Formats: sequence, structure tokens, C-alpha cells
Amino acid sequence: MAELPAGWEARGKPPTLFRRFSFGAYGETRAFLDALAALSEETGVHPQNINFGTTYVNVTLEAADGETLSDADTVFARRVDALIVRS
Amino acid sequence: MAELPAGWEARGKPPTLFRRFSFGAYGETRAFLDALAALSEETGVHPQNINFGTTYVNVTLEAADGETLSDADTVFARRVDALIVRS
Repeated sequence: MAELPAGWEARGKPPTLFRRFSFGAYGETRAFLDALAALSEETGVHPQNINFGTTYVNVTLEAADGETLSDADTVFARRVDALIVRS
Repeated sequence: MAELPAGWEARGKPPTLFRRFSFGAYGETRAFLDALAALSEETGVHPQNINFGTTYVNVTLEAADGETLSDADTVFARRVDALIVRS
């Protein structure tokens, strides 16, 4: 696997990629969640779990092959990062 | 507090209301999440936490006053239940 994208950590067996995103207000959280849903619909890749409150979103990605994290997983993680638009 | 709505359980200190919703497919999960977001925007009430994967959504509601579950909380829980459209 390529190097982990900054801010993501590998967790668990089988391994997952985890990152917490924090936002200043619910509107930003909502915009990120909507963009993430659109990305999943576009790619067919769904995070294993998304856990959110008003100002944070925790994203857990599972390995695409169910066993080992691969470049495909880090590429998807970077696409998730790219959904953040800093205002 | 009024009796808990069916399917919800009280948890933790301060107490929260928790329910797990299961769906047959991602499209139903997405429709529920979108309806829940619209309900929050309409009412200004946001669940403390929403935790979801492709076919489930776990909803945790905190007490409106931050301390004790009240009728307002069970009323909101019932409104969440009402978002489920059985197909």
C-alpha cells in the first residue's frame, strides 16, 4: 500500500482507514456529508461506517478487498479529503 | 417523561435515547438520512450522534435540557420513527 494520506490512521483486523473531520458549524458538516454521499453514489464505494454529530464526522473505510488496505483505499481516502472546502 | 416509544431505549448519564434502524438497501438508508436531516433543519433539534453504514442507522438523542429525558424528547423520537416509509 502507498503511504497513508495525512490525517488517516489504519485500525483493526481486517484493517480499516479512519479519520475524524471537525467543522465549525452544522452547515459545513452537512455539506461534507452530502458531498460524501454523492461521492459514494458516483464511485459505488461506501465507507464501512460514518459517525457524526453537529460539528464532526468520523469516517471509517474498509479495505476494498475486505482483507488488505491497498492503493485503491488510499486513493478513495484522498478523494474524501478533497471534499472539504475550507471557507 | 412519557413512556418510551417502542424500539427506543434510554442509555447513559446524562440519559440519551437510542434506536437502531435497519434497511434493506442503501437507497432506503439514504432516504431516511435525508429525511432526518430535513427534520433537524425544520425543528432545530439535532441528534447527539448518528452512526450509519450502508443498511443501518443508529440514532442517539440527548435530553433537550441536557439532563433529563422529557416529553419533548419522546415526541422527537416518534417524529424520527415516522420518517420510515415502509415500501
